[in-house]
Amino acid sequence: MYSSSENIERLISELADLPGVGRKSAGRLAYFIANSKKEKIDSLISSIKNVSENIKRCKICYTLSDGDVCQICSNANRNKKQIMVVENERDLFAYENVGEYKGVYHVLGGALSPLTGVGPNELKIKELMMRLKDDVDEVIIATNSSVEGETTATYLAKMIKPLNIKVTRIASGVPVGGDIENIDEVTLLRALNGRLVL
Amino acid sequence: MYSSSENIERLISELADLPGVGRKSAGRLAYFIANSKKEKIDSLISSIKNVSENIKRCKICYTLSDGDVCQICSNANRNKKQIMVVENERDLFAYENVGEYKGVYHVLGGALSPLTGVGPNELKIKELMMRLKDDVDEVIIATNSSVEGETTATYLAKMIKPLNIKVTRIASGVPVGGDIENIDEVTLLRALNGRLVL
Repeated sequence: MYSSSENIERLISELADLPGVGRKSAGRLAYFIANSKKEKIDSLISSIKNVSENIKRCKICYTLSDGDVCQICSNANRNKKQIMVVENERDLFAYENVGEYKGVYHVLGGALSPLTGVGPNELKIKELMMRLKDDVDEVIIATNSSVEGETTATYLAKMIKPLNIKVTRIASGVPVGGDIENIDEVTLLRALNGRLVL
Repeated sequence: MYSSSENIERLISELADLPGVGRKSAGRLAYFIANSKKEKIDSLISSIKNVSENIKRCKICYTLSDGDVCQICSNANRNKKQIMVVENERDLFAYENVGEYKGVYHVLGGALSPLTGVGPNELKIKELMMRLKDDVDEVIIATNSSVEGETTATYLAKMIKPLNIKVTRIASGVPVGGDIENIDEVTLLRALNGRLVL
């Protein structure tokens, strides 16, 4: 395939390698970059550089952080006695977008998966247990509802319950706006078993 | 809205400003950048920088180019006697992706739009007419089928025909895979009027 410029062609290839970016949107982005003011692109570049070079893991919850402790763990308004356990920082981001949750998080770095060799030692489970030595009221397990996520949830519940800390699991059921006729049987069964009294 | 890191939050905002990137995909990209090897991101940054700082306009066809003359205009295998006129470099990219066209291009930089004050002098029309002084067999007008694109096509055809150069317009009709019942009446009429003998 030809292009009028090697530099543009190279940029399109690199952009198309990013998650969720196809060749067509890569093209649109590349032409946008070529036509934008240099200052605007410099500012974008410096943001990318900042994240790529300076980001680390929070030493409390293991999410991405600017300093040793992330903005959430160091926020005095967040309830440190309520810990939501998520698989990764994208799940944390999704819950932060909702904006309702006022507790803190713990990022496992994945889910248990015996088939691909991810055992308890590959995840930040030891680190979670250490945090539970402090005064904690509730651990909310928000791993995915995949097989791995459910296995992890069951494993964690079994570890935490003996400590007399309340362990909860986010609800599983019909998504809001979802059409019951199109939803798989396992989800429908979950929704039935998890029904609430009105 | 909170995030665990100000750097990530800033990057997400800047990425979400790009065309076709929503807040959700900006989040996915930012976390990908945070978790990628520094070398990979450095290479992406240098591609962006290259395009932002070094790209210019080809002095023949006015598309984006690395040097004074673009890769297409300087390619000896392209037919310089066939010129496809497009509104912008994204349209050129779309036709290059098809891969079939072996002629060269002329990028107008927009379409005539009296309402928004885009007249012939705002577009590279004078420059196109200059090119037609050389030996040219055909000018293919590939402006959009919007009102502005059609106006531009009519205007160009009127200018070029007296030069005894063949002027053609890309076909307009039902898109391949398109459902006739869902297609607007103007397009259906065009498709009927432009019917081909089988």
